[in-house]
Amino acid sequence: MTRRGLMGAACAGCVAIQAGSGVRLAQAQAPAAGAAGGNWFPSRWGPDDQLGAANLLTPAKVQEATRLVREGKTYRMGIAVDRSTPAFPPRNFSVTVFMPGQEDGQTFGANRMSYVDDMVNGWLGVGTQIDSLAHLGIDNVFYNGNRARDFVRTTGVTKLGIENIPPFVTRGVLVDLARFKGKPRLDGGELVTADELRQAMAQQNVRVTPGDVVVLHTGWLSVLTENPQLFGSQEPGIDGPGAEYLASLQPLAVGADTWGVEAVPFRNPNVVWQGHQVLLARNGIYILENLDTRGLVADGASEFMFVLGQPLYRGAVQAIINPVAIR
Amino acid sequence: MTRRGLMGAACAGCVAIQAGSGVRLAQAQAPAAGAAGGNWFPSRWGPDDQLGAANLLTPAKVQEATRLVREGKTYRMGIAVDRSTPAFPPRNFSVTVFMPGQEDGQTFGANRMSYVDDMVNGWLGVGTQIDSLAHLGIDNVFYNGNRARDFVRTTGVTKLGIENIPPFVTRGVLVDLARFKGKPRLDGGELVTADELRQAMAQQNVRVTPGDVVVLHTGWLSVLTENPQLFGSQEPGIDGPGAEYLASLQPLAVGADTWGVEAVPFRNPNVVWQGHQVLLARNGIYILENLDTRGLVADGASEFMFVLGQPLYRGAVQAIINPVAIR
Amino acid sequence: MTRRGLMGAACAGCVAIQAGSGVRLAQAQAPAAGAAGGNWFPSRWGPDDQLGAANLLTPAKVQEATRLVREGKTYRMGIAVDRSTPAFPPRNFSVTVFMPGQEDGQTFGANRMSYVDDMVNGWLGVGTQIDSLAHLGIDNVFYNGNRARDFVRTTGVTKLGIENIPPFVTRGVLVDLARFKGKPRLDGGELVTADELRQAMAQQNVRVTPGDVVVLHTGWLSVLTENPQLFGSQEPGIDGPGAEYLASLQPLAVGADTWGVEAVPFRNPNVVWQGHQVLLARNGIYILENLDTRGLVADGASEFMFVLGQPLYRGAVQAIINPVAIR
Amino acid sequence: MTRRGLMGAACAGCVAIQAGSGVRLAQAQAPAAGAAGGNWFPSRWGPDDQLGAANLLTPAKVQEATRLVREGKTYRMGIAVDRSTPAFPPRNFSVTVFMPGQEDGQTFGANRMSYVDDMVNGWLGVGTQIDSLAHLGIDNVFYNGNRARDFVRTTGVTKLGIENIPPFVTRGVLVDLARFKGKPRLDGGELVTADELRQAMAQQNVRVTPGDVVVLHTGWLSVLTENPQLFGSQEPGIDGPGAEYLASLQPLAVGADTWGVEAVPFRNPNVVWQGHQVLLARNGIYILENLDTRGLVADGASEFMFVLGQPLYRGAVQAIINPVAIR
Repeated sequence: MTRRGLMGAACAGCVAIQAGSGVRLAQAQAPAAGAAGGNWFPSRWGPDDQLGAANLLTPAKVQEATRLVREGKTYRMGIAVDRSTPAFPPRNFSVTVFMPGQEDGQTFGANRMSYVDDMVNGWLGVGTQIDSLAHLGIDNVFYNGNRARDFVRTTGVTKLGIENIPPFVTRGVLVDLARFKGKPRLDGGELVTADELRQAMAQQNVRVTPGDVVVLHTGWLSVLTENPQLFGSQEPGIDGPGAEYLASLQPLAVGADTWGVEAVPFRNPNVVWQGHQVLLARNGIYILENLDTRGLVADGASEFMFVLGQPLYRGAVQAIINPVAIR
Repeated sequence: MTRRGLMGAACAGCVAIQAGSGVRLAQAQAPAAGAAGGNWFPSRWGPDDQLGAANLLTPAKVQEATRLVREGKTYRMGIAVDRSTPAFPPRNFSVTVFMPGQEDGQTFGANRMSYVDDMVNGWLGVGTQIDSLAHLGIDNVFYNGNRARDFVRTTGVTKLGIENIPPFVTRGVLVDLARFKGKPRLDGGELVTADELRQAMAQQNVRVTPGDVVVLHTGWLSVLTENPQLFGSQEPGIDGPGAEYLASLQPLAVGADTWGVEAVPFRNPNVVWQGHQVLLARNGIYILENLDTRGLVADGASEFMFVLGQPLYRGAVQAIINPVAIR
Repeated sequence: MTRRGLMGAACAGCVAIQAGSGVRLAQAQAPAAGAAGGNWFPSRWGPDDQLGAANLLTPAKVQEATRLVREGKTYRMGIAVDRSTPAFPPRNFSVTVFMPGQEDGQTFGANRMSYVDDMVNGWLGVGTQIDSLAHLGIDNVFYNGNRARDFVRTTGVTKLGIENIPPFVTRGVLVDLARFKGKPRLDGGELVTADELRQAMAQQNVRVTPGDVVVLHTGWLSVLTENPQLFGSQEPGIDGPGAEYLASLQPLAVGADTWGVEAVPFRNPNVVWQGHQVLLARNGIYILENLDTRGLVADGASEFMFVLGQPLYRGAVQAIINPVAIR
Repeated sequence: MTRRGLMGAACAGCVAIQAGSGVRLAQAQAPAAGAAGGNWFPSRWGPDDQLGAANLLTPAKVQEATRLVREGKTYRMGIAVDRSTPAFPPRNFSVTVFMPGQEDGQTFGANRMSYVDDMVNGWLGVGTQIDSLAHLGIDNVFYNGNRARDFVRTTGVTKLGIENIPPFVTRGVLVDLARFKGKPRLDGGELVTADELRQAMAQQNVRVTPGDVVVLHTGWLSVLTENPQLFGSQEPGIDGPGAEYLASLQPLAVGADTWGVEAVPFRNPNVVWQGHQVLLARNGIYILENLDTRGLVADGASEFMFVLGQPLYRGAVQAIINPVAIR
């Protein structure tokens, strides 16, 4: 018997307050609720779509990405995570290692097998991570009009989950915002406006084609080891209008070398994570955080093959990842 | 103050029983301890090497792999994991999902931000996984002669950990053992000998070059949904001598569509996971388990570009992964 | 910087939907929302009270309880919990045991210290448990009118938490409902009405005085080992009106040898856990579940000294406990 | 099929190194291994005993304890634990709270049931805790000669576990070491010798009878809020000889208002936790840590009824507890 069963076979009462919710949903569609306002669902890929911009992944895109491999050089874009990695409170992460059944130096079998095993405890939004379309929405409504009450379950979301996302094999482009601003790294809270994004991309000759992964380099990741507490409490980045601009380019995903892509503290403390709403909820564009861009920047790379196979945790809304860039 | 400190500043007593350990180490080097016997360290890549066969990853290898991409088709080789995924006891895995700080339908800010977050609890050796060189050894000695006592720590191994492994971007080859045996899938406990591996590869024209990932398809993964309990308690696969043969081909990694690559129950119940010892400990070759080979087999693919960026859990010995095959 | 800070310094938007909530709160006060209807807060112990019926714990009550100790016999009323203990989905529980830093048989110091340590992962509502007044409410309102949005936080409730509950040292009484019904145990779903409770207590000469712990014996706990799946999916017990009757006796807590005290499946599948609402929310009376009553029943004990010191997990709403009965 | 099965049906190899272990066991019995040397098992309660000093719990002892209740005043001797509680590295503890299935303000049933649930992740040796006889030993041998390899399992110890311990209902005595030393609290690392224990108890007229719980008050717990880092890295307390003295009084348990009862840093950094070895392993006496003694000291109480029902985690070696003192 399931929990739903224990809660009442029909759970007729679960709909008791939905009239009120309808009211809030109408508000969510009003201009105040998002950067651009207006209706934002159903999705351009149809009312049943769960993939969003992953619909832009095509064999042609894979081939385009493959052609970018010239030197045969690879870059890991993930950072190592452990107990000390700063994360959005109260998130944490730990791996615990031991040798099961081998107390007192015991081994297994005549071949004296020894093994080490590891447990994991924590949150999936730590370190280098992907935000699925189930991660963040507007007034309890997520990508393609999916309401929290309809798909968020304690044992995992029943739609839009991490396990539905196909492999990301596509073209990646990098915008070096630190170089654009003429300094080693942007400051905490420093906003990069939509206009500045446009200028930086023009200056650096970065052209985004539909289905690309757009990676923003701010240099902020260098703060991680210098001052973990500062790293995790502030960051440079974009805002809602900047996200609108990027969304207009139809990327598969937007990533950065920061833990949240957006400028924090927010300019208007009463408008929070609006860029996430624009990308994830309104446009079905994935977000990649804490990308290690240092190797690519050191090599002056602005385009590359991008490959990501995220762990397929069924029903999860995020995953700790390690995308691979190849040139 | 660290735990080591609390345990005694010098911990001189920690070495108290090492004489005994030396005896066991000598035994580990004797023929009985492994398939081939003899000294097995230092590694061919030098006494300080932690990468093993990942040393075979080169720009030329990346370019060779890239040239295998013709159709632009991608395959995810991970399986979805959740509370019900069978795993080596007492391993388990769960993701728990909820909306922090949003009780009673609350949202954040004037833009009514809603978000879903996820916690993870369990073990890293569940579902599709990579075994690092720190995972399994011979009589408390691991790859390149590293002793458990020197590098296994509760908070993570200090050598050979998952976070040290570079991206796997290389050629993948698939050997279809089910087709070789002329049946939809091999049986639980069914052994594929070294000779049979050689014959199957010859018949199917599979040539392994150094640094390749060798993937064995047994069809066993189809048992996972039919009979999870059976899936997790038995499996077809190789043994120590088979692993020796594969190791002689110098692959980067050996994988299979089973949870342990080796035939279980073991022929000799007193010789357990000898193939793991041969691959991981003696040869520095990584192991990939529970690979989803179905798409590749359906397409008759026997070679492909293989890309894996495993999550960089510092000090972990395994990781749940989702490698990407590209053709 | 805290998460609240990251969510927007003033979080003015957090109140955006509170008008709607006010509507629901009014509904909660209407007759339909609870067994007896009417206003149910502030509490009889004042609008700031967090203790509820624990206000009835007095030195006189302690002395009264102490006088019940005649034989010097003790009973543990907790059951052992492990990976196999059935629990309300998706709750689970596990303890993992190993010897940190002692790989390969190492010991610490010249005195060769060895130690075993244990990790815990799971939920607090497993096995023998206490429900605090923060555990269950009516339409997002809990004991004494506390709204979920005001005190429920991801890192722990800020009011009504387990850590606020004083030691329970009081008189315990046991009602043997199995004996009353003339069978070894009640059936799954079997309802014991308010009238039957009254009759059983009269027959068995059980008088409840304010501040007592009332323990109901149904015999259901014997199903736990016979058929764990059945045990966890059904149970005999009381309903809302029965809870009203018990509440009228002003006990400190109501407990049973079942996992939820109330009869499940519910008579009306659209009215769930109403007894919990009556006890916890409306009356500030604690609930104790999965009490092991077997020893007391075997000895024919109907009153005893009851002592419970629950672990003080700050901000938790439940705790796994092991109350002690003494006669 | 169990893990043991997967490891080889007979696991004959598991005994392969036991000859060496025999050597170490002999060493453990030699004078160097413990404070007093000599053979320390079988236990005085027989070779099969798992209870140790809990054998001293008798009805007469319960009655003796009950007679100490005069005022009807209760004291909780546990401290609240949360994410910030300092603990022996790498131990940690957290409770995570949320409202399952209630996203967007949903409730259950026509009675609008709302509920809060809580997950626990961490270690059991945090905050106020009991050490079972399975927690600490001498050279991989624990109370009554139990070897780690024979009873320590990843899923829980198969002997000496927390779930075997009967309720502690007995006389408690408190020795005020701070008052004895004439200061508000002892210093980090400050040793209280066996002679000083004897003097303090004589001065304060504290007589221990077999089966009592002996509680040492050092005042150190007041450091917990002032300086958590200092609190957790040092502590005043006893040593091996002091433990021998206390053991000679045949208590059920020895506790203190410190996290480890013994003086840390250790006088001889190469002799660690010898007091634990004396109490737990050699004498079967339980240890209670981080007891909150403040209320008892403020009231000048030196004897009281002591009641502890520890949560019955099957196979655990420790538990977070909240003993109750009653006067």
